[in-house]
Formats: sequence, C-alpha cells, structure tokens
Amino acid sequence: MVDAALKDGTADRRCVFEVFARRLPDGRRYGVAAGLGRFLTALTEFRFGDEEIGFLRDRDVIDEGTARWLADYRFTGDVRAYREGEVFFPESPVLQVEGTFAESVVLETLALSTFNADSAIAGAAARMVSAADGRPLAEMGSRRTGEWNAVAAARAAYIAGFGATSNLEAGRTWGIPTMGTAAHAFTLLHDSEEAAFRSQLDALGDGTTLLVDTYDIEAAVETAVRLTNGRLGAVRIDSGDLPSVVAAVRAQLDRLGAPATKITVTNDLDEYTIAALRAAPVDSYGVGTSVVSGSGHPAAGMVFKLVAHQTPAGDEWVPVAKKSADKVSTGGRKEAGRRLRNGIATAEVVLTSGRVGPDERPLLVPVVEHGEVDPAFLGVAGVEAARAHHKRAKAELPVDASRIGRGDPAIPTLVI
Amino acid sequence: MVDAALKDGTADRRCVFEVFARRLPDGRRYGVAAGLGRFLTALTEFRFGDEEIGFLRDRDVIDEGTARWLADYRFTGDVRAYREGEVFFPESPVLQVEGTFAESVVLETLALSTFNADSAIAGAAARMVSAADGRPLAEMGSRRTGEWNAVAAARAAYIAGFGATSNLEAGRTWGIPTMGTAAHAFTLLHDSEEAAFRSQLDALGDGTTLLVDTYDIEAAVETAVRLTNGRLGAVRIDSGDLPSVVAAVRAQLDRLGAPATKITVTNDLDEYTIAALRAAPVDSYGVGTSVVSGSGHPAAGMVFKLVAHQTPAGDEWVPVAKKSADKVSTGGRKEAGRRLRNGIATAEVVLTSGRVGPDERPLLVPVVEHGEVDPAFLGVAGVEAARAHHKRAKAELPVDASRIGRGDPAIPTLVI
Repeated sequence: MVDAALKDGTADRRCVFEVFARRLPDGRRYGVAAGLGRFLTALTEFRFGDEEIGFLRDRDVIDEGTARWLADYRFTGDVRAYREGEVFFPESPVLQVEGTFAESVVLETLALSTFNADSAIAGAAARMVSAADGRPLAEMGSRRTGEWNAVAAARAAYIAGFGATSNLEAGRTWGIPTMGTAAHAFTLLHDSEEAAFRSQLDALGDGTTLLVDTYDIEAAVETAVRLTNGRLGAVRIDSGDLPSVVAAVRAQLDRLGAPATKITVTNDLDEYTIAALRAAPVDSYGVGTSVVSGSGHPAAGMVFKLVAHQTPAGDEWVPVAKKSADKVSTGGRKEAGRRLRNGIATAEVVLTSGRVGPDERPLLVPVVEHGEVDPAFLGVAGVEAARAHHKRAKAELPVDASRIGRGDPAIPTLVI
Repeated sequence: MVDAALKDGTADRRCVFEVFARRLPDGRRYGVAAGLGRFLTALTEFRFGDEEIGFLRDRDVIDEGTARWLADYRFTGDVRAYREGEVFFPESPVLQVEGTFAESVVLETLALSTFNADSAIAGAAARMVSAADGRPLAEMGSRRTGEWNAVAAARAAYIAGFGATSNLEAGRTWGIPTMGTAAHAFTLLHDSEEAAFRSQLDALGDGTTLLVDTYDIEAAVETAVRLTNGRLGAVRIDSGDLPSVVAAVRAQLDRLGAPATKITVTNDLDEYTIAALRAAPVDSYGVGTSVVSGSGHPAAGMVFKLVAHQTPAGDEWVPVAKKSADKVSTGGRKEAGRRLRNGIATAEVVLTSGRVGPDERPLLVPVVEHGEVDPAFLGVAGVEAARAHHKRAKAELPVDASRIGRGDPAIPTLVI
C-alpha cells in the first residue's frame, strides 16, 4: 500500500484512522482499553533498520523509493486516545491517529497488536477483580502465553486491578509488585515434605507461603504449623474441590493455633470459580491461564480504520467508510464523551460532529503531538496512572455492570 | 526455589523434568508440538544480566549467593524432545530436561511459554489445513495477538502447513513465505475505487490481488476485470455470506472473460467456516484471529513437572510424582514411541521403564547434549524440517483424525 501510494501521490494525504471494536465479546458488559503505554513506547522506537529494509528489497516487496522513505521513517502526526485503563463500549474510538496516509497506515499492526492483546487481558482481569470482591489477585499466567506476551499480560492485569504478578520481568520493566511461589517440584525434590518446608522457611522466613497439596493436605498443614509454631504466613492450595478443601484447611489452621495464617488458592481459576469462592475463607487468588488468555476472548476485536482524509488540495476533510454487507462503519473523525448522571454513566456518546456536552466526560486526550509522545503515558508512571484511572472509570459504571453473568453492554453507545 | 535449594544443598541434585499435556483441548483429536526451535534459540541466549540481577537483589528476591549463581548461569544439561511438528497426545513427554535442579527449574517458564503458545497455534492450524483440503492458507492474524506472539504464530502456522504469512518479520527471521494485501483504507483513500485499483495495478502489476468489497462487489469486479483486460491475478472478499458471494463472483469473473482470476477469502475464518466453503470455488484462504488464538484454545495446557531426581549420593534415580486429588502424574523418566500398523498409528506408548519396541517409531530425540544445542533444530532449516516432519507425522494418523467435529484423541495413550 505504501509503495503504491508513494507512486500515485496519495501517500501524503492527511488522514485520520481510528481504532474501535464493533462489539464487545459475547456477553461482556464493558471493555477495558489497555496497551496505550506499550504502543507509545514502541512508537518512539518505530524505525526501519538496514536489515529490515534489505529484506524487503531482496524479496521485492518494495522499490527503491519506498526503501528510502522507510529509512527516514519517523511518525510526525498526532494521536489522541482513551486514557489507558478507561472502559470502552462498541464503537468507542479508543485510539485516533492523524497523519499522512503512509506514516499512519504502517502503524496498523503495531496499534492493533498492542491494543487487542492487552485489552483482552484487562477486560478479563477487571471481571475477576469484581468477582474477588476486594480480596487480592495475583497474575501467574506467564507459562500459558508467549514469553513476551507474558510481560504485557502482567502489566494489563495490574492496570485492571490485580495486585501482583509472578513475572519478574514485568516487575523490572513496569514496576509491578512481584510475588513468587514454590512449585510441587520443590517438595518432590526433597527427601520429605518436611525437609522441603524447612528449607523454604530457612531461606524465606515464617512469613512465606507453603504449598500444601503435593501429598496429603491435612498432614502438610499439620507439618507447616508445627515447623512455624503457628506463625506461618500462608498456605497455597492448587488442587481439589476448592470450596470444601479451603473450609477444611481454615478449620484445621484455626484448631492448630494458626488463625493468622492465610490461604491462597490457584487451581485454574477464572471469574466464575473466583465468584464461587466468595463464601469460602480464601484470602487471595493466583490466576493463570484464564487471565492471560482473556478468559475465552483472547483478542479484543479492535480494528484500525480510515475514517477521513483530506482532499487533494488539503483544504477539506472527506469522511469515508466501508459500505459492505456485514461490517458497517461510521465515517468521519469522532469525539467521544461518557454521559453521566449523578456520577453514574448512562451512555457512551460518539459524535461525528460537534463537541462533547457539559454532562459528558471527554474521553479522548492528546497523547502524541507532532510526533512527540507525552511521557506521562510511558513507563512506570504511565502504568500507575492507568491503574488509578481504571478504578475511577469502573466506579462510574452502573452497579449491574460488574455482574459476572452474560449481558448487554452496560450502557448504550449513541453514535450521533 | 533456587535460593532455598542453593542453601540446603539440593540445587545440585540431578533431575529430570518433563513437559506434557494431561489432556487435549476439548474435542481435539491430536495436538501438534511446536515451539522447540524457539525454545532452543532462547536457551542458547539464556543468561542473567547485571540489570536483571540488580533488580532481584534490590527487591530482596535473592541473596548474594544466588546472584553469583545467576551471573554464571549457563545450562549444561541434556534435553530430548519430540521433533518440532510432531503430533502428540495426552501424557506425551514432548520435552525432557535433565540437569541439576537449579539449572533446570529456571527454564520452566521459558519452556512452557514457547511450547504452550506455539503448540496451541499449530494444533489449530493443522485442523484448518485439513479443512482446506489442499487449497492454500495464509496466516494473517498479526493484529489479533501480541506483537511478538505474532511472529511466533506465523512460524507455528507454517510448520502446521499454512503456505504463507502477512508477517514480514516472520519472513525475515524464519524464512517463511510472505504475502500482503491491500486494506479497505487504500480504496477509501482514493477519490474512486477505480483510482485505487489503477494505483495498485501500476505498482504491483496485473498479477496482484484486488480487494473488491469496499463498496459494491459486482461493480468492483467489473472494474477490476476491465482495467486488466481479464488478466487480474485475484480478487479478495472480506465480508458477506461467503458461499453465495464467492459463487456469484466466480460466475461473474467467468462471464467477463477472467476465468484464470482467482478468489481469496478472509472473513473471520476458522476450521469450521473453511470446511463449509469446500463446495465453493474458493482458491485460497486468509486466516487471522482464529489461528493465532488457537481457535478457542489459546494455550496447549502443557505443564513442566519434576519426574525423577537422583539420590543425595547420586547413585540412583528416584521417580517422583504429585499425589493430589485431581492432577495425577506418572513419575520416572519416560521413553515414548508411536505404535504403527501398516504405517498407521494405533497407539501412543509412554514407557516408564524399558525401551521403545520394534513396531514403534521412537519419538524422543536428543536436541541438547551437555548444554550444546544441536543446530539442526534452529533457524530457517529447523522450521523447514519441522514442517516436513509434521506432514509425515500427520500422514500416519488414522484418516478419521482429521475430521473437524469433536472427538476423543485419535489414538489411545498407553502409559506402561
């Protein structure tokens, strides 16, 4: 596309592209926009090196003119976006890129990869946070997704309200609190469960969490309490029918004089099994596969669409939209606001003309101006701001939005 | 775990860890092992740098002794594995790592991330290849998964029989054939569909593929044929009820004198919709979301388990296994063979002692010896070998294994 557009002169037409989802995953009541900080970080480094350009030339994907254009590539346009952590609905323009056709269109894959992957995880994580009803959640799914996705997943889950991750690289890169656990392998390695527990307590102190389900849970809990004189930090349970097992372990801990010892559970949890444990004396949850894979919806369904371009003379915007059978879009650059009544959201307002009204919280904020990324959205500070913003945005939703069962979007989208 | 094991002296116990799936995704008849080449590539570079170690020390995750151990880390053990592209079944030991406890246990996340992600994609892709019944498939899902997963996804799909990818980085890194398409944005950018088509034909020649569903498909096909005097390479359709639309477009192309112009379709395809197009005159498929997300099963469910360790004296192997309620494993180092009758697989044989029999194809091959990775499994050559091996292994399965409907594993696993 860039090759042809450079040749025919349309490459420099100023364009607006928008990222949005036509619908939410089946039954979900809201989405959570995540990935912005990663997209912007990547944008600051988005260049084409000699090796990449050489490959494209060797394969005859591009001609010499396009090769020169790529070598000089640097995004010079403007980007507005929903704040990271913001909730979104069908048609919400979560990202809006304005620049020349060529400089903007090459960002499609980067924008959608980061937004689709991270928003899928954040959307699932937010539901788990609701289901956990105030109890802390740790993201432990690195082994269930690609090795780099794992780092992004920890970040997205944290933005949506998880308290920690087992992914140490996410701690190093994004400042996310980290935690660790012992695996069954550690117990199996030792000549007895007691030897394994002693070793872990010697290394990490009585405040550690001991994994008690390698052999017999009741015997393991007895050993764990005895070795710590009841001062053990926590036990972890990773198998069995959790509601009944957790109740039995709690009773045993209390009986043995360890009422302060906490119980953490980690057995293939998702928002439904977390909710089913509300009445159980669980103190915290570790969640793996379901959160890193978006709990059944591993991509957020966002698309990157041209919505307007300037006339050849550059004096007017032309709204454009595909007109095919099953994928109708709305042309033109959007404004977006969340309509609130007494602080509670009543509608997502997407405007094709005019401005956001006085009862509507504006949703699009500038994040890149003339190619310069606003550093407030990057790094550790960006993650913390996103997490705080998510909490505020979620609090504005009608209370029913947090129910775990399937439903329609919590508020309607009004495209005006 | 490493910290505690270094302190208590068990870190140097020689161990065997195995990667396997307890079950296949619901209804799947076989799995496809992928990720080995990426795992081995990462293993050759698996080191802990000053920044990483500094972070772990600052956060008090490890002590000074463990920091020194990590700084010197280099895997010195042995690895055997199912060849990349091999099919697998429940309990198949697809990866077997032998080394000290500490040097092996730190590989868990790397091994599982690569194997779970890549095998999920390869398993889904293999079903789509069967459904396409000889017609070529292109992987086009980069925008529906994390930006680095996208490269791995293209690789895994190619190993399972896809013919090409739209991910250029996968072409550059792994030698996978690449292809591209024009987006609706390219047509919308131009002042008319005809202008967009002319531009693309000028840049890429009549052999290109024109996207014909931005406005009215019939009008677009007429324009496309007229501009190329019937010599157009192909048209792409990305919306609508594909069986009927494809039939109409084929009839129109033939009527307009373009019988050699091919039809490629790309509208949210998965193995079921591909199979539903068997009777339609489709020439090739482009598949996105469903292949990169494992078509409903984004992680292959593999685990990394300690199955044996040496006695403290180092003179004997002790088989070990967790004994908890719902996650039973089999201890001891495994051998594995595929039992064949007249060239067709009849059972997956997993042995806890003894050797693979004469009617069984041995499945575990050495890939790392004393820390040295066999280069045959790396890079472009490794990918091509994996693709070729997959084709052979799939051809051994009973013919019924390729049916798209749900079923049990195509052959039983005999753990002996």
